[in-house]
Amino acid sequence: MTDDANRLRVAIVGASGYTGAELVRLLVCHPAARVVALTADRKAGNTLDAVFPHLAGAGGEGALPPLVAVDNVDWEGIDIAFFGLPHGASQPVIAALPPQVKAIDLSPDFRFADPAVYSEWYGLPHQSPALQAEAVYGLTELMRDRVKAARIIACPGCYPTSSLLPLIPLVEAGLIEADEVIIDAKSGVSGAGRAAKEGSLYAEVAEGIHAYGVASHRHAPEIEQGLSLAAGRAIKVNFTPHLMPMNRGILSSIYVRLAKGASADDLRATLATRYQGEPFVKVLAAGTVPATRHVRGSNQCRIGVFADRLPGRAILLSVIDNLVKGASGQAVQNMNVVCGLPETMGLAQAPIFP
Amino acid sequence: MTDDANRLRVAIVGASGYTGAELVRLLVCHPAARVVALTADRKAGNTLDAVFPHLAGAGGEGALPPLVAVDNVDWEGIDIAFFGLPHGASQPVIAALPPQVKAIDLSPDFRFADPAVYSEWYGLPHQSPALQAEAVYGLTELMRDRVKAARIIACPGCYPTSSLLPLIPLVEAGLIEADEVIIDAKSGVSGAGRAAKEGSLYAEVAEGIHAYGVASHRHAPEIEQGLSLAAGRAIKVNFTPHLMPMNRGILSSIYVRLAKGASADDLRATLATRYQGEPFVKVLAAGTVPATRHVRGSNQCRIGVFADRLPGRAILLSVIDNLVKGASGQAVQNMNVVCGLPETMGLAQAPIFP
Amino acid sequence: MTDDANRLRVAIVGASGYTGAELVRLLVCHPAARVVALTADRKAGNTLDAVFPHLAGAGGEGALPPLVAVDNVDWEGIDIAFFGLPHGASQPVIAALPPQVKAIDLSPDFRFADPAVYSEWYGLPHQSPALQAEAVYGLTELMRDRVKAARIIACPGCYPTSSLLPLIPLVEAGLIEADEVIIDAKSGVSGAGRAAKEGSLYAEVAEGIHAYGVASHRHAPEIEQGLSLAAGRAIKVNFTPHLMPMNRGILSSIYVRLAKGASADDLRATLATRYQGEPFVKVLAAGTVPATRHVRGSNQCRIGVFADRLPGRAILLSVIDNLVKGASGQAVQNMNVVCGLPETMGLAQAPIFP
Amino acid sequence: MTDDANRLRVAIVGASGYTGAELVRLLVCHPAARVVALTADRKAGNTLDAVFPHLAGAGGEGALPPLVAVDNVDWEGIDIAFFGLPHGASQPVIAALPPQVKAIDLSPDFRFADPAVYSEWYGLPHQSPALQAEAVYGLTELMRDRVKAARIIACPGCYPTSSLLPLIPLVEAGLIEADEVIIDAKSGVSGAGRAAKEGSLYAEVAEGIHAYGVASHRHAPEIEQGLSLAAGRAIKVNFTPHLMPMNRGILSSIYVRLAKGASADDLRATLATRYQGEPFVKVLAAGTVPATRHVRGSNQCRIGVFADRLPGRAILLSVIDNLVKGASGQAVQNMNVVCGLPETMGLAQAPIFP
Repeated sequence: MTDDANRLRVAIVGASGYTGAELVRLLVCHPAARVVALTADRKAGNTLDAVFPHLAGAGGEGALPPLVAVDNVDWEGIDIAFFGLPHGASQPVIAALPPQVKAIDLSPDFRFADPAVYSEWYGLPHQSPALQAEAVYGLTELMRDRVKAARIIACPGCYPTSSLLPLIPLVEAGLIEADEVIIDAKSGVSGAGRAAKEGSLYAEVAEGIHAYGVASHRHAPEIEQGLSLAAGRAIKVNFTPHLMPMNRGILSSIYVRLAKGASADDLRATLATRYQGEPFVKVLAAGTVPATRHVRGSNQCRIGVFADRLPGRAILLSVIDNLVKGASGQAVQNMNVVCGLPETMGLAQAPIFP
Repeated sequence: MTDDANRLRVAIVGASGYTGAELVRLLVCHPAARVVALTADRKAGNTLDAVFPHLAGAGGEGALPPLVAVDNVDWEGIDIAFFGLPHGASQPVIAALPPQVKAIDLSPDFRFADPAVYSEWYGLPHQSPALQAEAVYGLTELMRDRVKAARIIACPGCYPTSSLLPLIPLVEAGLIEADEVIIDAKSGVSGAGRAAKEGSLYAEVAEGIHAYGVASHRHAPEIEQGLSLAAGRAIKVNFTPHLMPMNRGILSSIYVRLAKGASADDLRATLATRYQGEPFVKVLAAGTVPATRHVRGSNQCRIGVFADRLPGRAILLSVIDNLVKGASGQAVQNMNVVCGLPETMGLAQAPIFP
Repeated sequence: MTDDANRLRVAIVGASGYTGAELVRLLVCHPAARVVALTADRKAGNTLDAVFPHLAGAGGEGALPPLVAVDNVDWEGIDIAFFGLPHGASQPVIAALPPQVKAIDLSPDFRFADPAVYSEWYGLPHQSPALQAEAVYGLTELMRDRVKAARIIACPGCYPTSSLLPLIPLVEAGLIEADEVIIDAKSGVSGAGRAAKEGSLYAEVAEGIHAYGVASHRHAPEIEQGLSLAAGRAIKVNFTPHLMPMNRGILSSIYVRLAKGASADDLRATLATRYQGEPFVKVLAAGTVPATRHVRGSNQCRIGVFADRLPGRAILLSVIDNLVKGASGQAVQNMNVVCGLPETMGLAQAPIFP
Repeated sequence: MTDDANRLRVAIVGASGYTGAELVRLLVCHPAARVVALTADRKAGNTLDAVFPHLAGAGGEGALPPLVAVDNVDWEGIDIAFFGLPHGASQPVIAALPPQVKAIDLSPDFRFADPAVYSEWYGLPHQSPALQAEAVYGLTELMRDRVKAARIIACPGCYPTSSLLPLIPLVEAGLIEADEVIIDAKSGVSGAGRAAKEGSLYAEVAEGIHAYGVASHRHAPEIEQGLSLAAGRAIKVNFTPHLMPMNRGILSSIYVRLAKGASADDLRATLATRYQGEPFVKVLAAGTVPATRHVRGSNQCRIGVFADRLPGRAILLSVIDNLVKGASGQAVQNMNVVCGLPETMGLAQAPIFP
């Protein structure tokens, strides 16, 4: 446990959404960090527990500062700032930060190396293309060295995290055909955020499932960026997300064509080797199926690999908690890396089941 | 409304499972049928509402007979018998029926034209291979003429129903590559039946999702039988079912490679034409996504067709209520057909939402 | 089945909410009614299935009219109008109806005999106090004779329906102390309507329960009105509603003090006698516990009566589907009564489980 | 963080149930404890993650011992043993422990000061009545001094924990009438354990609610024991549990009659004073309603106090996570107390929401 004076001073910008709350949940138990600023423009003036009653008393009575408008943050006192804002909102704030503040952005604002792709999919011009060049895509296990040296870290989207962790090593190893990847993803509802929308109502989600954003979801180009980099050429994917009745969790069922001569066992072995020793990525034994409920509340990604009945094909099953490894947990993991802390610090909680 | 004396006299063999209860729910409102026998060997002697309280008073007080052992059914008084037994149990009972009784079997016992396939996947020798030749696979919309003349109707499994309705017309039309079909299916829990198994407990199912029977589920050969017949050659499929927290419903997300020159619009048009005028199969307009909750409690199948981001590919989305169109509803539909009644009789209820 | 020309011509005002959709679900199967007008001011111009996809094709293709603004309804062609509007909105529309239209209001606008009570609890002056005198409180089983002769029927709230059916006969019989009734009610989410509110989001409702409106819910005065009338003096109640994760259903657990000499068995016998022959109210045998899932989708109310461990007290358990017996089903039941049709017409569906 | 050699050596007897898994989840993060033995007679020989995949790797790879039969535990190496066995099974094992082992029992085996009460409600003779006299009822906040000195700690049931924390201080202060307490409790499904029972199936629990054990649940006498002790005379209560669709959580809605002159504000003030400084019990501000989802995964109990519409009465609302404060968390809290550790050690996690 670090002395309070030596702890990292952390700001959470956009603390009134689910990812903001999840950052708080994780950081109040982090032994080397201290949350010193919380912002939420429309809720400024409130305590956090007025917005998120479950966080009342978190970290000890009085441990958390009140919500303020982002303009009222004293950035001189901040070492690390997390951004949980809607797309388009992070870029100007991060551009105006004093240089000693490291920014960890959970929005898509800095995820795309090519600002034109961002602009095409999010319908906005990029407001800080110069900074974009310096931003690092924070898929920690696969970008650790670049994260270490970064000042701006763009945390991957939840779906891309669950897809790219199994896919990138296989594409890099040439074991699968990168041009024919089919990703059928199933997500819990918290991924849609806390905004009051008819489509997120209990009665519209419970006891049913449906696809959405078919062939048009914004996480497709993000996945394609990752695979294109790995393949060394432009790749497109089938990415079909589904909304289902659970609070947390993503299961990506990924259907791949094997490269000539490769087998499902080869894929599993390659992934097992690649993630050997990684504390948060587990490649399961043959025959073991991952389940979202087995990673709930934790920063884990679990991956299963299966042979297909169709010859020359394999199935990858990948699960994460979208709010942890898919958002706030990976963000804290990146903080640990960029600050030189042990990577698992504050992230060692076991999953919570049932 | 038919005079009571002229109504079809119906037996439900295996009335203590969810499909049995669903048959009762539908048949008590059927104007040309009357349930005169209910069997449940282990529950014999009970009234049905002791097993299924929701059916207390269904059809009017005293409308339903008590549960008896199957050996105690007086078959002379029966016109139609539904079988909701576990696999292996229907064959001997159906083989011993007097000739005037038409049998509608919801189990897999008569689904496979080749008894060896049944035997391989269900681990039992077929006990009535002679009768198998006469059994008709009751995917009503695609087998109507054969159903009309049948004495033994094998109702399709729930997953095959949701998959074959969109796929068979496309394979027959040569619009998709039958050898590369990938079916990612999501099912509610009632498909697993009412047996008390750890894996079906609320705490093991709620708030999560996982694949099961990967590359080994018994509905794969059934789907393959349907596609092989349509293609005129032996076909294998990727069929990957997932268990998710809902009572009723199946969504099959089907990823197909287009035949040369074909487009997603062609697929949609072909299906729309094929199912034009069908009361229970709806092909949705371009851009409309089907949802399981929109068919809950009804005998409908709804199908959406989408272009893929991957060139030369398309996505089919198909939803049913597994207990209705996937089991008891299609069984009643088959009864209507085989008995010369209007096909929608007793099946006109609108879906129940939310 | 009535000839189309002879069917009642029905308007549903406010068809874009859950109760409106439920009216449509029930009425498309009603053999003596035909829906000829559907209104939804903000959605005018749409077809109903654009708002409620589950109703696509309901009643047969083309059976349902498009949504129009309420001002565009041709009232001359209407026999019966159902109102599913927010409070305050029905009063002026009903006041302006031509005299041949019977109004069945699902809102609270005409539920209170004393306009001052309405005004106090709903924060609005009553806009049609003259009409109020002629409105009948449509708790059908207990008000059947008055409903028969009514022109304006105020359908009870969902919570009051589940509470008053067991309580009123017991208060009238003097078997319980009317001044000490404690009603702990648990409701599904559809009771909160389809408005996009943070508190109704899946993630805010699933996997949890909480009380709301403690000692201040608007259904308290409505229950009190019913009990006061039965007791012949002003009665107050404890009414504590809870929001829980289910789409449909209300369970009211009611804790009562017995009148001197009365027993739980007396209560059960009195209710059984009172509701003898009623098609929609079932008093369960001693020891049988009602469950909301056993009445889902049906117009039933089921009531269990238990002795308490505390001497001199008893427990009443009452379940309904809030959208059916608690709203649209009871509304159709009232239509049947006021129009001289068989009371169960169009309402005979068995509950849907699971 | 304690040196490994100095950590408490902990055994979990009955590790294959939900409370066993929850103990592991909490203890792998406990800085002063080390799990050195796990028993599960029927699963002996397996690793824990074969039974609970979510715990794979918990505490670090290889941190957890394999499951063994209870007879194979080497008790000499154990400081603390937790018991998560069915009722009747703990008594003989605890009776045979060497004297240095402290026993923390999560079953009802040692909860009743009077063995005859245990015997009456659990249908078994007490097998260790002599030890019973020495056992301490581990409702930590109210029994801390006795827990400190105990060798056998009987952890309270989940329902009694949620009820007694608000009630005992009020009965002791004479602010409520102890003879008229009505407890309407709502519980998640994990309280029923992991046994495969029809009544715990997803399809039998989801989307519904029902009361069970009405006037006959085994937690009634346990609550009565606590209140009787507080009141100084024999007390009976109305305790009516309900099963609802959630994994974790209990909400007890408690209806009380105020002592003459007392008000709801007095009750709240008394509870606030009583629990001032307690890390795990929060008395909420007037008007704030507790929700089970706000304590999920944490060891908290939150209590709200409301005036009733009925004069002279008040409403207490109390929430816990049944697996944490209602079972394994309170057990760890008791371990901390009895071992002289800081009471919050290993229990500081914030609740997990959504």
